[in-house]
Amino acid sequence: MEIQIAVAKTNKYAVSESGDTLEVIERPNGGVSVVLADGQTSGKAAKAISSMVVRKVIALLAEGVRDGAAARAASDYLYTEKNGKVSATLNILSADLQTNTIVIARNNHCPIYVARGEMIETLISEAPAIGTSRNIRPDISEIPLEGGTTVVMFTDGVLHAGERYGESLDIPTILGSFLEDQEPPAQVIADSLLAQAIQLDQNRPNDDMSVVVLRVLHHKQDLIRRMIVRLPVGPDENEF
Amino acid sequence: MEIQIAVAKTNKYAVSESGDTLEVIERPNGGVSVVLADGQTSGKAAKAISSMVVRKVIALLAEGVRDGAAARAASDYLYTEKNGKVSATLNILSADLQTNTIVIARNNHCPIYVARGEMIETLISEAPAIGTSRNIRPDISEIPLEGGTTVVMFTDGVLHAGERYGESLDIPTILGSFLEDQEPPAQVIADSLLAQAIQLDQNRPNDDMSVVVLRVLHHKQDLIRRMIVRLPVGPDENEF
Repeated sequence: MEIQIAVAKTNKYAVSESGDTLEVIERPNGGVSVVLADGQTSGKAAKAISSMVVRKVIALLAEGVRDGAAARAASDYLYTEKNGKVSATLNILSADLQTNTIVIARNNHCPIYVARGEMIETLISEAPAIGTSRNIRPDISEIPLEGGTTVVMFTDGVLHAGERYGESLDIPTILGSFLEDQEPPAQVIADSLLAQAIQLDQNRPNDDMSVVVLRVLHHKQDLIRRMIVRLPVGPDENEF
Repeated sequence: MEIQIAVAKTNKYAVSESGDTLEVIERPNGGVSVVLADGQTSGKAAKAISSMVVRKVIALLAEGVRDGAAARAASDYLYTEKNGKVSATLNILSADLQTNTIVIARNNHCPIYVARGEMIETLISEAPAIGTSRNIRPDISEIPLEGGTTVVMFTDGVLHAGERYGESLDIPTILGSFLEDQEPPAQVIADSLLAQAIQLDQNRPNDDMSVVVLRVLHHKQDLIRRMIVRLPVGPDENEF
């Protein structure tokens, strides 16, 4: 099998700093985790919050702490640091090679979509953002790590894309049409979802937007692990 | 501009765990850092060391600690934890958007190649591995973050590829031939270097091998940040 994780991320229009923070980290007992947080509001203040939360979670995961416990710890930490006045959404998506499962920990009103074959399931149950009270727990789902599985998660900038123009992104339908193809690469799906979200906001994203797509392919190409990071820098010319 | 970072990584032949650990992390004041460590020996023991070192470094970088100080701290930490009996090589490669520079911190006998335009410079000065004595310092280089710059770093599995068959990888020549092309993607360079290293070991890598290529392109494609991770899993069929 091959696990592919693709991330596509952009900032709110005319805001240079994204309030979303995302890190990918190797799990100490095998596998990989994606940690995605969105701090309240946008810009610098939101970035400080989301990056504090993600830093805490990846430090805990790196020490072998389980995902659910790491999410609870991050919530208590944010609650303590900010006196319960600041919230953040948090998703942890892990491909755990020790348990051979995909683990999804969700503290977010945004749904997460899980496709197995062409069947798409929506994870949408109550899952409060972290930091605003004690004892906040994530919504945890655990599914077998097997070929043909696709997980799509995103921040609320994607969920609310197009809202001010009376439109919205129909992610399951877009995802479904991709899954009819022969094993589309995760990056193609992530890029396409983000591009359509930006378009719905008329090329001026109304909020920070992040899309993460995890795919498990049946076959691996070779025994090479690969990572690519692409970071546009310099003056914004708003070329979406 | 666009910063591209590409990583290609494989294990020693018939050893399921790589002793190399690599993480990419966002810098708190803008930009991105790649942290690459190779623990003494290979397999599980080496992995535990390299992952301990990388974890320490990324935690410090995430708090805003400067690269050189993070490398020194990781060395002292390893020295203390293992009583000076275990060493690791460590490279930190950062694209720092606060200073607009590329910062290279090197505790490694492996050279690092830096190309600006078609001129290739070799960073090869004395730079001891960390963990074996007090006061170990990295070799630090800082160069402007500008279009047309390429940095290639790797672990010693790549440096010594082919040695037992009387051959070796001529990285500057391979890199030079890529740079004659029109802006070759970082991933193409990393993949090609790793493939040639594996081939020199007759498709049975004699050690863990990691290649990192950082490129600064003159033009950016759009305002989207992207990341792709590809992780082969399941039984090794040695399909290099």
